[in-house]
Amino acid sequence: MKDALIIGGQSFNSRLITGTGKFGNHQLMEEALLASGTELVTMALKRIEKDDDDDILKHLRHPSIHLLPNTSGVRNAKEAVFAAQMAREALETNWLKLEIHPDPKYLLPDPVETLEAAAELVKLGFIVLPYIHADPVLCKRLEEVGVAAVMPLGSPIGSNKGLKTIDFLQIIIEQSNVPVIVDAGIGAPSHAAAAMELGADAVLVNTAIAVAGDPITMALAFRQGVESGRKAWLAGLGAVSDHAHASSPFTQFLAEL
Amino acid sequence: MKDALIIGGQSFNSRLITGTGKFGNHQLMEEALLASGTELVTMALKRIEKDDDDDILKHLRHPSIHLLPNTSGVRNAKEAVFAAQMAREALETNWLKLEIHPDPKYLLPDPVETLEAAAELVKLGFIVLPYIHADPVLCKRLEEVGVAAVMPLGSPIGSNKGLKTIDFLQIIIEQSNVPVIVDAGIGAPSHAAAAMELGADAVLVNTAIAVAGDPITMALAFRQGVESGRKAWLAGLGAVSDHAHASSPFTQFLAEL
Amino acid sequence: MKDALIIGGQSFNSRLITGTGKFGNHQLMEEALLASGTELVTMALKRIEKDDDDDILKHLRHPSIHLLPNTSGVRNAKEAVFAAQMAREALETNWLKLEIHPDPKYLLPDPVETLEAAAELVKLGFIVLPYIHADPVLCKRLEEVGVAAVMPLGSPIGSNKGLKTIDFLQIIIEQSNVPVIVDAGIGAPSHAAAAMELGADAVLVNTAIAVAGDPITMALAFRQGVESGRKAWLAGLGAVSDHAHASSPFTQFLAEL
Amino acid sequence: MKDALIIGGQSFNSRLITGTGKFGNHQLMEEALLASGTELVTMALKRIEKDDDDDILKHLRHPSIHLLPNTSGVRNAKEAVFAAQMAREALETNWLKLEIHPDPKYLLPDPVETLEAAAELVKLGFIVLPYIHADPVLCKRLEEVGVAAVMPLGSPIGSNKGLKTIDFLQIIIEQSNVPVIVDAGIGAPSHAAAAMELGADAVLVNTAIAVAGDPITMALAFRQGVESGRKAWLAGLGAVSDHAHASSPFTQFLAEL
Repeated sequence: MKDALIIGGQSFNSRLITGTGKFGNHQLMEEALLASGTELVTMALKRIEKDDDDDILKHLRHPSIHLLPNTSGVRNAKEAVFAAQMAREALETNWLKLEIHPDPKYLLPDPVETLEAAAELVKLGFIVLPYIHADPVLCKRLEEVGVAAVMPLGSPIGSNKGLKTIDFLQIIIEQSNVPVIVDAGIGAPSHAAAAMELGADAVLVNTAIAVAGDPITMALAFRQGVESGRKAWLAGLGAVSDHAHASSPFTQFLAEL
Repeated sequence: MKDALIIGGQSFNSRLITGTGKFGNHQLMEEALLASGTELVTMALKRIEKDDDDDILKHLRHPSIHLLPNTSGVRNAKEAVFAAQMAREALETNWLKLEIHPDPKYLLPDPVETLEAAAELVKLGFIVLPYIHADPVLCKRLEEVGVAAVMPLGSPIGSNKGLKTIDFLQIIIEQSNVPVIVDAGIGAPSHAAAAMELGADAVLVNTAIAVAGDPITMALAFRQGVESGRKAWLAGLGAVSDHAHASSPFTQFLAEL
Repeated sequence: MKDALIIGGQSFNSRLITGTGKFGNHQLMEEALLASGTELVTMALKRIEKDDDDDILKHLRHPSIHLLPNTSGVRNAKEAVFAAQMAREALETNWLKLEIHPDPKYLLPDPVETLEAAAELVKLGFIVLPYIHADPVLCKRLEEVGVAAVMPLGSPIGSNKGLKTIDFLQIIIEQSNVPVIVDAGIGAPSHAAAAMELGADAVLVNTAIAVAGDPITMALAFRQGVESGRKAWLAGLGAVSDHAHASSPFTQFLAEL
Repeated sequence: MKDALIIGGQSFNSRLITGTGKFGNHQLMEEALLASGTELVTMALKRIEKDDDDDILKHLRHPSIHLLPNTSGVRNAKEAVFAAQMAREALETNWLKLEIHPDPKYLLPDPVETLEAAAELVKLGFIVLPYIHADPVLCKRLEEVGVAAVMPLGSPIGSNKGLKTIDFLQIIIEQSNVPVIVDAGIGAPSHAAAAMELGADAVLVNTAIAVAGDPITMALAFRQGVESGRKAWLAGLGAVSDHAHASSPFTQFLAEL
């Protein structure tokens, strides 16, 4: 009856996964994340354990929020496995968003290192959610090594360009046996809604909320956008057609007078 | 403080305008319209005054719903003015959605007849909302003759193709001094959200709700989609960019250990 | 046998119509136009009859080039008719590209004034080619008053955005009984080719050639692009499909060894 | 002075690479390939060495045509290396288009097996041109192991959808030190031209020519489309802008009379 999202055996009511980067300050981040209704929040390992007066973790400790550490900044499988183990120890969770992007300009993921690291991390007992290109074959291979979900990108991180990979996301969704979470490039609620209408299981949004003029209102907007797209998918969208289906013309009505 | 939509001096809380065509039956239509939260509902004159056992008007008499008769089916200005006067008498409202589409295949509007009819109907005391091509110059001319809003199309009626005219809608929104309501072609909540994110004042949705597998859930989806897009516009969307803005790499973090 | 373009009873081998604006100088313009193979060149009335040392007309007097004066800069039907008559007298041609754009920012055409002027100019014996929005109903009305061709825009003049109106161009081409010439917005040979592949009869290109780094090479590029798209339309393009049609796999070949 | 394409130390005048599949018969294929001006033709290993009365190779033996055997149909690196060696022996060439697509529905390539096979084949002395997803990181890794070019896809093979991956092709072209050849999905000359305008070094076209109503005319169309796009790239395309740059209005001209 409930339309829950299940990842790694855990059930979520919200299909809006969020990140913690680029917010003006931690307080604003906390308020925006709560407004978004998110239940799964990813954060870079490098952002914790600094003896900060205002530790980011204080702002993420909420009963509704499940932490998803990520390996942002690592450049290969070896670094990723090391970072994952540090994250598990520091945050006491075996959940992991696996990100390996050697390219500092576009932050695009490395398919080969990601598959290698995913296979090893699954063996080490991690719940692995890999961030990858919208590559249907890679998604299947990751599924075969036991990842809990796949996170194909919509467009380059931080570009706000939306679902530029939509033709491939469609194939991924059609073929996947694990949840498909569209990550990266979602710059507006309409993009998030479109991903859900396509049949994605969830979306990850960070930059678009964090850098908005008003991040809290934008968080509410994305919350509604995701729910809206999910409802539309459940309700069954009509087909796209090339022309109108005319009903009886008014002139016929005039003739009947 | 409230973000109300004002058309013809009247204030609306909902920015989702709906139609009455193509629903399976009147009861389903009524439930879907109530679920959508709509406050302005358009209906063809030709659909009233038939001695129907189940008169459509019975299903539209709600305190929150404002009726917007339309001239669907007329082919020129003369027929439109005649139909408008009949509608005013029958429904006791001077509000009018002006539609003149001579082409039965695509139901596209006639710019010249529409301008002529709009000018005359304004003089006759109507609150005129014309359905038109996304033609910025025509929108300005309609504004000059006194229409209460302009209703440019997103794509052909019933096509579900979304905002194919987005480059021109943007110019219309930039230049208009009356509300801009995107009409026709909106086939999914993501399309409605995108129109609102662009700065449209409202959208009109009919087919996409009426022909959905579950019209009531789809009505809820569109309600949220419109609210979501409006919030995003108010909150200030980020710019689209060509590449990521990298934060400090993890390897730097490793170096700091 | 020959695939000629017929406008107003005159036959053209080239389907690339060009303009004279924005070139660095008249000599460069002349060389680029000759390289393009164009046989129909439009020029603004305001650019002639000035006692220039380097009169633009000197550079356009070629046996292969047919002049098409335009009314660029006029704001209504009355000014257009006056400008057309001046052009006829000055250039001794009754051919006319009718342009009425009251908006100085986007130079978008006025549908109502254009229809009125077209009707009058046809009566006055002009061969009228009106520049208009990609509005299928307006195109039919212009055809009814006797224009020789219709010139719907692809996107705003000078924007180089390409065929943003493609969904409407398709309808125009399907319905038109006079040649359809895509005008405005064509910024690259691929845009010109796409218009021809869609079934357009010709395209008009000006800015993209004139402001190119090397206008002569760009003129050659557009010439080939137009010819390429026309050939593809004649040869019959394949349908777009959602997936591959696999041929027998190599593994089957291995099995057969 | 000449604008030659250099791959693996060999110089080509044509930037249109073609395939041999799906033609009605070998004679038609031969005529179309000659009309296209192609100098590099790929063919599946599985299509040779059958004791056919009408051996395909007879139709490909032309001084201007360089053969590029491909591994179409193999599902992993091991099969690819085996197939490559068979091809080298049978066709006496060390050139190879490396294709590994385990998925029979969409024929999308496997990034991990492709990288592994490419590394081994380069060591074995092959000139390797791998067919891959438009994945910029994978392209760099393939370049690092010594491939002679990269062949990212525009959209799924045989779909005719064009450059759906354009945002990623742009990054690949920006970053690559080896020729970038857009492969798969190019369904019309306008797509081929657009790839060249983007800065691609060449395109591969097969289905769109082979299944055209008239393959020979379509081959000519693609030849011109590729040349057109290349010329445009060399000539320097103008930037896309949001509005027109108005020249002096006609009314100013009237005022000057």
